[in-house]
Amino acid sequence: MKFSAQQIADVLQGSVDGDPQVEISTISKIEEGQSGSLSFLANPKYTQYIYTTEASAIIVAEDFVAEKEIKATLIRVPDAYNSFATLLAYYQNMIRKEKHGREQNVFVHPTAKVSDDIYLGAFAYVGENVKIGKNVKVYPHVYIGDNVEIGDNTVIYQGVKIYHDTKIGGNCTFHANVVIGSDGFGFAPQSENDFRKVPQVGNVVIEDKVEIGAGSTIDRATIGSTILRQGVKLDNLIQIAHNVVIGENTVIAAQSGVAGSTHIGKNCMIGGQVGIIGHLKIGDGVMIAAQSGIGNNVKDGEIIQGSPAFSVGDYRRSYVMFRKLPDLNQRVSSLEKKIQDQQKE
Amino acid sequence: MKFSAQQIADVLQGSVDGDPQVEISTISKIEEGQSGSLSFLANPKYTQYIYTTEASAIIVAEDFVAEKEIKATLIRVPDAYNSFATLLAYYQNMIRKEKHGREQNVFVHPTAKVSDDIYLGAFAYVGENVKIGKNVKVYPHVYIGDNVEIGDNTVIYQGVKIYHDTKIGGNCTFHANVVIGSDGFGFAPQSENDFRKVPQVGNVVIEDKVEIGAGSTIDRATIGSTILRQGVKLDNLIQIAHNVVIGENTVIAAQSGVAGSTHIGKNCMIGGQVGIIGHLKIGDGVMIAAQSGIGNNVKDGEIIQGSPAFSVGDYRRSYVMFRKLPDLNQRVSSLEKKIQDQQKE
Amino acid sequence: MKFSAQQIADVLQGSVDGDPQVEISTISKIEEGQSGSLSFLANPKYTQYIYTTEASAIIVAEDFVAEKEIKATLIRVPDAYNSFATLLAYYQNMIRKEKHGREQNVFVHPTAKVSDDIYLGAFAYVGENVKIGKNVKVYPHVYIGDNVEIGDNTVIYQGVKIYHDTKIGGNCTFHANVVIGSDGFGFAPQSENDFRKVPQVGNVVIEDKVEIGAGSTIDRATIGSTILRQGVKLDNLIQIAHNVVIGENTVIAAQSGVAGSTHIGKNCMIGGQVGIIGHLKIGDGVMIAAQSGIGNNVKDGEIIQGSPAFSVGDYRRSYVMFRKLPDLNQRVSSLEKKIQDQQKE
Repeated sequence: MKFSAQQIADVLQGSVDGDPQVEISTISKIEEGQSGSLSFLANPKYTQYIYTTEASAIIVAEDFVAEKEIKATLIRVPDAYNSFATLLAYYQNMIRKEKHGREQNVFVHPTAKVSDDIYLGAFAYVGENVKIGKNVKVYPHVYIGDNVEIGDNTVIYQGVKIYHDTKIGGNCTFHANVVIGSDGFGFAPQSENDFRKVPQVGNVVIEDKVEIGAGSTIDRATIGSTILRQGVKLDNLIQIAHNVVIGENTVIAAQSGVAGSTHIGKNCMIGGQVGIIGHLKIGDGVMIAAQSGIGNNVKDGEIIQGSPAFSVGDYRRSYVMFRKLPDLNQRVSSLEKKIQDQQKE
Repeated sequence: MKFSAQQIADVLQGSVDGDPQVEISTISKIEEGQSGSLSFLANPKYTQYIYTTEASAIIVAEDFVAEKEIKATLIRVPDAYNSFATLLAYYQNMIRKEKHGREQNVFVHPTAKVSDDIYLGAFAYVGENVKIGKNVKVYPHVYIGDNVEIGDNTVIYQGVKIYHDTKIGGNCTFHANVVIGSDGFGFAPQSENDFRKVPQVGNVVIEDKVEIGAGSTIDRATIGSTILRQGVKLDNLIQIAHNVVIGENTVIAAQSGVAGSTHIGKNCMIGGQVGIIGHLKIGDGVMIAAQSGIGNNVKDGEIIQGSPAFSVGDYRRSYVMFRKLPDLNQRVSSLEKKIQDQQKE
Repeated sequence: MKFSAQQIADVLQGSVDGDPQVEISTISKIEEGQSGSLSFLANPKYTQYIYTTEASAIIVAEDFVAEKEIKATLIRVPDAYNSFATLLAYYQNMIRKEKHGREQNVFVHPTAKVSDDIYLGAFAYVGENVKIGKNVKVYPHVYIGDNVEIGDNTVIYQGVKIYHDTKIGGNCTFHANVVIGSDGFGFAPQSENDFRKVPQVGNVVIEDKVEIGAGSTIDRATIGSTILRQGVKLDNLIQIAHNVVIGENTVIAAQSGVAGSTHIGKNCMIGGQVGIIGHLKIGDGVMIAAQSGIGNNVKDGEIIQGSPAFSVGDYRRSYVMFRKLPDLNQRVSSLEKKIQDQQKE
C-alpha cells in the first residue's frame, strides 16, 4: 500500500513543505530512514538526523526551522509526536490481525458470565461468578479468579494472573505476567521474633483506561480496596502495595514501588526505580526524578529528587557540591593551616 | 451475620469501653468507618480518625487515652494490630470458599506422589517423582518440576514456577508468578570477552512457614543449596541469587535483591529496594533502611542506611549536611575571602 | 561413579599436588567439603577454608602458594573457576535427564513449522506462522506468539511469554516467566492531562547465545527493533525498554533497568539495580557500579558509580567526605569562630 505525502498530511491536517507527491510505503525511525519511509522528529536530540536521513517524508512541528537543506518532504503539524501516534494507530490497524473466538482447552466455570464476542486463548482460566464484558481479549495462560469483573474492550495478555474479587474497568490493557490482587505484605510481630500473617480480605479496583506493564504486581487491600483510578499508566516490574490509591492519569516508570496505604494524586509523573514508603500523601501534579526515595508527604505540584528526596533544584545544587567534596575538604584544610600559621606568628 | 461489641471483646479477651451491645456486621479502615463496622487503631498516624469515624466499634490498645469524646465503642486489648489480625482471620474463614479437588486438564506424571486431599487447579503441571503433602493447594498454571518435594498445607498460587529438585516445607505460601530454582547468574569469562555458562547443579531449599510475594525470583545454587529458613517473609519482586542463605524469620520488603553466596542472619528487617552484594555475612537482628546498598559485612543488631550503607544515625547526620552543602560552600568561600582580606592588610 | 584426582586432573589438563589416587564421588563448596568431594578455590575470600576443608581434592590456580599444611589433594590449573565450570558441565550431563518429545495438551497452530526433535511441554502455546529450529526445548506454560522465529538449541523455560514477531537466535536460554515483546511505554500527552497510547508496531530481535534471567521483561520497539546482540547475559527481574540496543557480550546484573532508545556497547559490565535513562549512548567496555543512575552518555571503557554516576574513583572520594560531613561542618564552624574572635580583638 502506498500513500503520497499529501494524503498523509490531509489525514493529519498538516501542511506539506516539499514534494507532495513523494510516495510512502513504510514507517521508520529518523536515523534509520530509507527511500519510501516516513519518519518523525519530536525529540530535539534527533534534530541532526533530519539533514542526513534517507526518509522520504518527515513529520515535524509547525514551527520547525531548518538550519540546512533537507532532502525529505516535511509534513508540518501542531504536535509531531501526537500525529505520529495517530499514523502508527492507522498502521497497526492495517497490519494487525485481531484475535477472536474461543480456542480449545479453556477452563470456564459454569457460573461465569462471558460475552460471546470475546477472545479466549487456550489454557485461559475463568473462575466462579466471573463477569467479562464485550470485546474483551483474554490471551492464553491468563488466570481470572472467582468473582472478578472486567469491563468492555479490556485486553489481558498472556500469563496475567488476577486474584478473586478484583474489579476492572473498560479499555484497560494488562501486559504479560502482570499480577493483580496478591496478598498485601502484612505480618503482625509475635513474641520471640515470630510473625503471624494478617489476612488480606480487601480487593483491587482498577478503573477505565488503565495500562499496566509486564510483570508488575498490584496487591489487594488488607480491608477496603487498592485503587488505580482512570487513566493510570504503569510501566513494567512495578510494585503497588496493599491499600495504595493512585489518582487519575498518573504515570509511573519501570521498577518503581509504592508501599502500603500511600495515596498518590492525579496527573503525577514518577520516574523509574522510585521508592515511596507507606502511609504517605503525594499531591496532584507531583514529579519525582528516577531513583528517588520518598519518605514524607509531598505537596501538589512539587518536583523532587534524591533519597530521601527534596526539591529538585536544591538536590542538584547539593549534588554538584557532593562531587566537589574532596576539593571542599582541601579548602577547609588550607584555611585551617592558614589560621594556625597566623596564630603561631 | 451480626455480633455485639461484647461478643467480639470476649473473643479477643479484651474489655469494652462504651456500649457493649452495639451491633457489628462488617470490617472497615478507621478513616472509612460506617455504622455497623468495626475498625482498629494501631498506627499513631491515624489517631485523628478515632474522633471522627462513623465506625461502631474500634479495637485500641489497653492504655489508649482519648483526648476528646469518641462516639464509637472501644474494645481495649494488649496489642490492637494482633487482635485485628485475629478477627480478620475469623472473617476470612467465614467469607472464603476453600478450593478442593482436581480440576480438568491437569498434567500429573505417573511417578508423582500426590495426597488425595490437595487442590489441583486446571493446567497445573506436576513432574516426575514429585512428592506433595497433605492439604496442599496448587492453583492453575503452576509448574512443579521433577523431584520437587512440598510439605503439608502449603499454598502455591497461579503461575508459580518451581524448577526441578526444589525442597519446600509445610505451611508455606507462594504468590502468583513466583519463580523458584532458576539458574544462578554464573558465567566464566573466556578469551576475547566471550562468556561460558557455569552449570548450576545445586537446588533451592525452603523451610516451613515461608511466604514469598508475587513475581519474586529465587535462584538455585551453583552447588549445594540456596536456603530460606523457617518463617522467612519475602515481599513482591525480590531477587535472591544462587547460594544465598536467609535466616529464620527475616523479613524483606519489595524489590530488594541479594547477590550470590551472601548469608543473612535471623530476625533481620530489610526495607524495600535494598541491594546486597555477594559473598557477605549479614548478622542477626540487622535492620536496613529502604534503598540502601550493602557492600560490606554487617554485625548483629546494626541499623544501617545509605548506598553504600553505614550507621543510620550517622547517615542521617551526613544527609542533613548534604542538603546544606551549597550553604557550607558559601561559608567556606566567605572564610577564604576574609583570610585573603586579612593577608592583604 | 568414582574418579581419582589424577583422572580429573587429566580431563582438566592440570597437575596433581598430593595423593593422585584419592577418590572423588561428589562436588561441594569448599566450606562444606566432605571426604570424597571435590571443591575449588577461585575467590580469595574463601582461601581460609582450604586449610580446614574436609574435601578430598581442590582445584586451585597454578600459582597458588599454600601458607599452611593442606590435607586435600590439589589439582593445579591455569584458571580454577573455568576448570570448575568444565567439571560442572560434565557432572550436569551425567545427572540431568534431557526433556524430549511432545507432552499432551499442547496448542500448536496448524501453520507453525516446528522441528520434530523439539521438547514441547504440556500447556505450551505455539501461534500462527511460528518457526522453531532443531533441538529447541519449550517447557510447559510457554507462550509463543504469531510469527515468532526461534533458532536451534534454544531453551525456553516454563512460563516464558514471547509476543508476536519476535526473532530469536540459536543457543539462547530464557528462564521462567521472562516476557519478550511487550509494548513499550509510550503515551502522547493530550489536552487536560489525558494520555493516548502510542502504538508499538516494532519487534524484539535476540541474537545467538543470549541468556535472560527469570522474570525479566524486554519491550518491543515502537518502530524498528529492540535488539540484544550475541552473547548478552541478563540476570533476573531486569527491564529493557523499547528500542534499546545492547551490544555483544554485555552482562547486566539483577533488577537493573534501561529506558527507551538507549544504546549500550559491547563487553560492558553493569551491576545490579542500575538505572539508565533513555536516548543515551553507553560505549564499549563500560563498567557501572550497582545502584548507579546514568543520566548522560558514557565513553568507552569508563568505570562509573553514583546517582547520577561519575568516575568511580571520584565517587568514592566524594563518598568518604560525605560520611565526614558533620565533621567538616564542625571544622568550618570552628574556623568561623576563630576568625570572628580575631576580628573582635
